[in-house]
Amino acid sequence: MAIQFWFEFASSYSYPAAMRIEAAAAARGIAVEWKAFLLGPIFRSQGWNDSPFNLYPAKGRYMWRDLSRLCEELHLPFVRPSQFPRNGLLAARVACAFANEPWLPAFVRAFYAANFARDEDVSSVAVIARCLESAGQHPEALLAAAGSETSKAKLRAQGEEAERLGLFGAPSFVVGRELFWGNDRLESALAWHAAHDAGRA
Amino acid sequence: MAIQFWFEFASSYSYPAAMRIEAAAAARGIAVEWKAFLLGPIFRSQGWNDSPFNLYPAKGRYMWRDLSRLCEELHLPFVRPSQFPRNGLLAARVACAFANEPWLPAFVRAFYAANFARDEDVSSVAVIARCLESAGQHPEALLAAAGSETSKAKLRAQGEEAERLGLFGAPSFVVGRELFWGNDRLESALAWHAAHDAGRA
Repeated sequence: MAIQFWFEFASSYSYPAAMRIEAAAAARGIAVEWKAFLLGPIFRSQGWNDSPFNLYPAKGRYMWRDLSRLCEELHLPFVRPSQFPRNGLLAARVACAFANEPWLPAFVRAFYAANFARDEDVSSVAVIARCLESAGQHPEALLAAAGSETSKAKLRAQGEEAERLGLFGAPSFVVGRELFWGNDRLESALAWHAAHDAGRA
Repeated sequence: MAIQFWFEFASSYSYPAAMRIEAAAAARGIAVEWKAFLLGPIFRSQGWNDSPFNLYPAKGRYMWRDLSRLCEELHLPFVRPSQFPRNGLLAARVACAFANEPWLPAFVRAFYAANFARDEDVSSVAVIARCLESAGQHPEALLAAAGSETSKAKLRAQGEEAERLGLFGAPSFVVGRELFWGNDRLESALAWHAAHDAGRA
């Protein structure tokens, strides 16, 4: 049993989660399934046409301060992006099409660092190409494949799976039938895995 | 410098926070200021006429499961209340009027246990009276004082202070100028206090 890591490229708290999940899971011998999805359709079905951090200013002000403290604690560089949220559609198609590639986690981390540590326009093809290069890949063929109808359908299906699982925010972790929401639930999710996978072994 | 504990009697995650803050703060030699407030007016100013856990069912389903897991982890009894949220107005007036009394934390804990461990109708005067008794007090005079105009004005002023501080949910912790939101930020708030109070000493 793996831990499923459901992340949204635009999501602020997905940044620290993406940066630390691989090492944290590996330390417990747990495999990670990387599941990109889009929050937009889920938010729209709740009547939101923007991030709740923009719709509810007090919540937004708090989030930026909290995230900044958190990154300091985790020794992660952090620069508040000049635009939020940034469109993660193309990146999500890449991550969904190549979910099982060994370079995928490095690509995801490169994307988050570009967005939340260097304030780069990660919605642009150029920045995504650079993220692929930094993960050791040649971008052209991968970006073409990510734009294919197959890949688009794959991301849509993953979004439907997210709704069936009851996801309403990101990052989320799924272990068996248990859902954990938020970067600060990563440790609980891993502990749950350890307790319940051991029982089945 | 004390840590301010902002709690709302109806709030589900305020339950574990209320049960553990006194011991957790005392272990670090930190005093706690108990600040009851009402979330209703804050939620209404965001366009919500109910708890977000009722307005957004996926979020609500998750919260109950998460809270149940959390209580198990903390060895706190938990029964999902048959009504949620329950009106905490009278209890908040008591807590606000007698915030500095040594018995106040025991009263607050008795209230939360009645609501979230025994599914009692904590909006009723009878249950609140029992909570006062379990904190070693005679309820009559205290309840009369809590219903006075002075006490009502005190709670309203505390609500205005909460808005000025940028509070948007409960529980929240305030340390100096720093806001921490959520039961799972209690440790961060205490660590912040330890780091920054030491610097001033």
